[in-house]
Amino acid sequence: MDTIVEGVHFPAGTDAADVGYRALAVNLSDLAAMGAQPSWMTLSLSLPQANEQWLGGFAQGLFGLADAYQVALIGGDTVRGPLVVTVQVAGLVDTGWLTRSGARPGDLLFISGVPGEAAAGLAMVQGGRNQTPAEQHLRQRFLRPTPRVTLGNALRGLASAAMDVSDGVLVDLEKLCGASGCAARLDVDALPASTAMQALFSNDDCVHYALAGGDDYEIMFTLPAAHVRELSVVTDGGPVCTRIGVITEGRGVECSRQGRPFVMRQRGYDHFAQGKDRGTT
Amino acid sequence: MDTIVEGVHFPAGTDAADVGYRALAVNLSDLAAMGAQPSWMTLSLSLPQANEQWLGGFAQGLFGLADAYQVALIGGDTVRGPLVVTVQVAGLVDTGWLTRSGARPGDLLFISGVPGEAAAGLAMVQGGRNQTPAEQHLRQRFLRPTPRVTLGNALRGLASAAMDVSDGVLVDLEKLCGASGCAARLDVDALPASTAMQALFSNDDCVHYALAGGDDYEIMFTLPAAHVRELSVVTDGGPVCTRIGVITEGRGVECSRQGRPFVMRQRGYDHFAQGKDRGTT
Repeated sequence: MDTIVEGVHFPAGTDAADVGYRALAVNLSDLAAMGAQPSWMTLSLSLPQANEQWLGGFAQGLFGLADAYQVALIGGDTVRGPLVVTVQVAGLVDTGWLTRSGARPGDLLFISGVPGEAAAGLAMVQGGRNQTPAEQHLRQRFLRPTPRVTLGNALRGLASAAMDVSDGVLVDLEKLCGASGCAARLDVDALPASTAMQALFSNDDCVHYALAGGDDYEIMFTLPAAHVRELSVVTDGGPVCTRIGVITEGRGVECSRQGRPFVMRQRGYDHFAQGKDRGTT
Repeated sequence: MDTIVEGVHFPAGTDAADVGYRALAVNLSDLAAMGAQPSWMTLSLSLPQANEQWLGGFAQGLFGLADAYQVALIGGDTVRGPLVVTVQVAGLVDTGWLTRSGARPGDLLFISGVPGEAAAGLAMVQGGRNQTPAEQHLRQRFLRPTPRVTLGNALRGLASAAMDVSDGVLVDLEKLCGASGCAARLDVDALPASTAMQALFSNDDCVHYALAGGDDYEIMFTLPAAHVRELSVVTDGGPVCTRIGVITEGRGVECSRQGRPFVMRQRGYDHFAQGKDRGTT
C-alpha cells in the first residue's frame, strides 16, 4: 500500500496519466522486490473536484500499467479532498519470497538499472527542462519508473535479500542492513554510469543523485557469491544489474570512492523532514 | 477501503482518537453490511507532521476498535501531506454474503438504530455544543458510530439485500433500489424517534436529518416477509431494527408522510457537490 500526495511525491500540475501510472508503479515495485506476482488492487482517490478530463487521463495511466501486469481493480473509494492517491496491490507468491532480512556477510550487493536518474528527472520537471534527449530521458525516469516485476520473480531462490529503492540507495541500504543485522561496504565508483546525467551534471552531482536521490524504484539485492553465475542467466533481457558492494559484519554502511572513505552530505529522503518536499513547484 | 479527509469527513481539530476510531469504523460498517467477519487491515496515513501526541491518540482510537473486533494491522504507508486516512479492511464470509442487489418487490425495508443522530451530532460538533446530555449523546453518535458487525452477520441467510447508510437514508435507499432493479415506498412516520433529537430540533428538522443526514453507519436491509419472525430472534441484544417501508416494482423511492407524498428539499450527501463540506469549521 502506497500513498502519493500532490506537492510531496509529485509536483502540482503533473499530468494525470503520470499520476495514475505512478500510483500503481510504486506498488508494483514493492511487490517486485518480494518476488511476488501482482494480482489485484484497490484504489482510494481523493481529488478536489470531479474533473472528467483529469479522471480520463488518470485512468489511462493507471489501467495502462494495470493491464500490462494483469492487475484487476476490485474496489476502492473516491472522495473530495486534496489530491492524494492510495493504491494497495495484492500479489501472490508460491514460496521463497524475498525479504530485507536475509543478507549475510560475504553476500554481494547489486542494484538494477541506473539509480539517480529519477531524482535528476525530478529536477528537470521542476526546472521545466524538456528540450534535449538527455533531459527528456531523465524526466521519463522520474515520471514513468519501470516496476521490476520480472526481475524480482527471477531473483526468488537466488537473492538472499531484496528491496526496492524509493528513498535513496544509501538510506535504503541502511534499512536492508538493519533488517539483516549486518553492514555493507558500497563502492561509489562501481555505481552504473548514466550517459544522460553525465551530459548534464558534474561527477559529484551524479554521485549525489545516485546515492541520495530516491524515486528510483530499482531493486537492490544481495546475492551469495555462489549464485553470481546464475544471475546473468535470469536477468538476460531485463535491466542491467550492477555489483556495487558487499555485505559485511557489523552495522551501518561504509562508502568508498577512489580508495578513500566517502561521506555524503545529505543522505536520502526523510518523509517528515522540513523543507525537503519532493515535487513542490 | 474508505478514505476520510480532514475538513471533509471530519472537522479540522477533531480529537486524534476519534479520527482513528472513525477511519476503521466506517470500514467495519461496510463489512458488516455484507455479513462479513472483519479480519485484517492496512492503513495509509498522510499527516502534516510527525506529532507523537497526535499519533498516540490516533493509535488509541484505531487499535481500541481493532482489538474489539480482532482486526490485525498487516501493513500500510505513512507519508507527509494533508490529514487523510485510508483504511482497507479484509473480511471473511463463508457463504451467503449480503449485497445491495437482492431486494425484491414485497420485501420489507428495515433500518438499524436511529438514523439522523450522527448528522445532528455533527451540527453539535460544528456549533461547539457539548452541554446537555442530548447534545453529548448526539456528538458521540457522530464521533463514534457503532459498526453493526454482529447484526450484519446475523442477517446472512435472512435479509435479501443490505447496505450501510453513509450518505443518507434516502440517497442510499435509491442506490439499493437501483442495484436491485426495483423501487421502494418509505413511510416517514415510521422512522425511529430520537429522544435527543426531539429535545433539540423541530419535527421537520428531525425528518430531514433522518432521511438526508448521512454518517449514520446503520444497516439498511430488506427482508422477505416470511423472515420477519426470525428477525426479532437474531437481533435480540443488538440495535433496534425498525420497519420503515416496503420494496415495490418500478424505479426510485417514494416517501409518504401522514398519508401524503413527501418530497425532501436536499436529499443526501454528494461527494462532489459545492459548498456542502461536512466537518469544515
